[in-house]
Amino acid sequence: MAVLALLTIASTSVQAQVAPRDSLISRGDRTIWHEHHPSEREWGYAQAIVIGNTIHMSGTIGGGATMEEQLRQIYRRIERGLARHGARMEHIVRETVFTKDVQALAAANAVRKTAYAGHTPAASWVQVTRLLSEQALVEIEVTAVLPAAASSGR
Amino acid sequence: MAVLALLTIASTSVQAQVAPRDSLISRGDRTIWHEHHPSEREWGYAQAIVIGNTIHMSGTIGGGATMEEQLRQIYRRIERGLARHGARMEHIVRETVFTKDVQALAAANAVRKTAYAGHTPAASWVQVTRLLSEQALVEIEVTAVLPAAASSGR
Amino acid sequence: MAVLALLTIASTSVQAQVAPRDSLISRGDRTIWHEHHPSEREWGYAQAIVIGNTIHMSGTIGGGATMEEQLRQIYRRIERGLARHGARMEHIVRETVFTKDVQALAAANAVRKTAYAGHTPAASWVQVTRLLSEQALVEIEVTAVLPAAASSGR
Repeated sequence: MAVLALLTIASTSVQAQVAPRDSLISRGDRTIWHEHHPSEREWGYAQAIVIGNTIHMSGTIGGGATMEEQLRQIYRRIERGLARHGARMEHIVRETVFTKDVQALAAANAVRKTAYAGHTPAASWVQVTRLLSEQALVEIEVTAVLPAAASSGR
Repeated sequence: MAVLALLTIASTSVQAQVAPRDSLISRGDRTIWHEHHPSEREWGYAQAIVIGNTIHMSGTIGGGATMEEQLRQIYRRIERGLARHGARMEHIVRETVFTKDVQALAAANAVRKTAYAGHTPAASWVQVTRLLSEQALVEIEVTAVLPAAASSGR
Repeated sequence: MAVLALLTIASTSVQAQVAPRDSLISRGDRTIWHEHHPSEREWGYAQAIVIGNTIHMSGTIGGGATMEEQLRQIYRRIERGLARHGARMEHIVRETVFTKDVQALAAANAVRKTAYAGHTPAASWVQVTRLLSEQALVEIEVTAVLPAAASSGR
């Protein structure tokens, strides 16, 4: 997903600093988080749904022309998204990586490892033919679980 | 999955109205639901496993010659499957869409949005080369979580 | 993932019997399990993360030249991995199978069904263009949930 959201980032980075475009909707036991709410609602998805301690995050893409650049932007977006809900990279329990070039991904793994800073999630990497955005080389879907103890203290 | 199940639907739609082919097996804290039990057992999968408040639904395909028709049938099946376990489309927390043509999928997104009726799950869309059924253009896997309050009242 | 881990298995099977290479790291409410810890840490993933009753297992590949052989090794690895955390194949709630040849996978389904011994998880099968390891024909990601009752008795 996130093709339009990405264009939104690119074209409104200045305004975004002034007026953040995200929105949190609370529905009973869950929170629906639109990182870029007009475009995500237009496409019909949410960047994350938080229910109990679990953060289900949408497949995330990033701008940039190379695998390294895209990975860097993706993990920055994921990290910021997790922080919005009180979580950190180390709380990611599962990562599924869909990429158009798994060898380029493997070659750029240092970027991914830097983002995880020693944390090692359960992971699956697969090579697909295309993502929604034609420019996207890689899309990363994560699920994070906040520590049981932390949830009461939030 | 669901290639044989789909053929079953096509060939037995009349009988299905008379004698529903689904089966619910309760095993301790979980329920195993076969939507079309002879074919699903033959293939070795269940259309859904329900454990606690969570409904893990298998990748679902639908009949029809076009992306629009298949999407319509898929979401109808998913909606009916969720209803079987007391859930609705708005309880879907994560959707992973595997398609042979992501551009056709994007073009048919109005069908998907109608099915969700304003709900926006966390979602990932990827283009793959083939699904189990050769006719399938798209397969959709969802996970739904019933509201915590509702679970005690079921 | 697991390309290097697999090479490790192939080249060190004798030593592995003497000095198992797995490691369990306990971090608050979760356990990080490295089946082959030097290579998994090097790549930046864990074969499984266990949190509460849920075992999130990485996409698993196996050695062998044919689909049948790879499936046999994969399910043996998954079964052993689950056993390490007190779970069995019947506790798998969701299976996602990524394969380079979905028709060969369907033809070899008897191997998979033998491994499940009558259990039927929720499942999605998709055909992709490549996995991380060039030799891998199939990669299987599973999530298992231990019975609620069993968790207190462990």
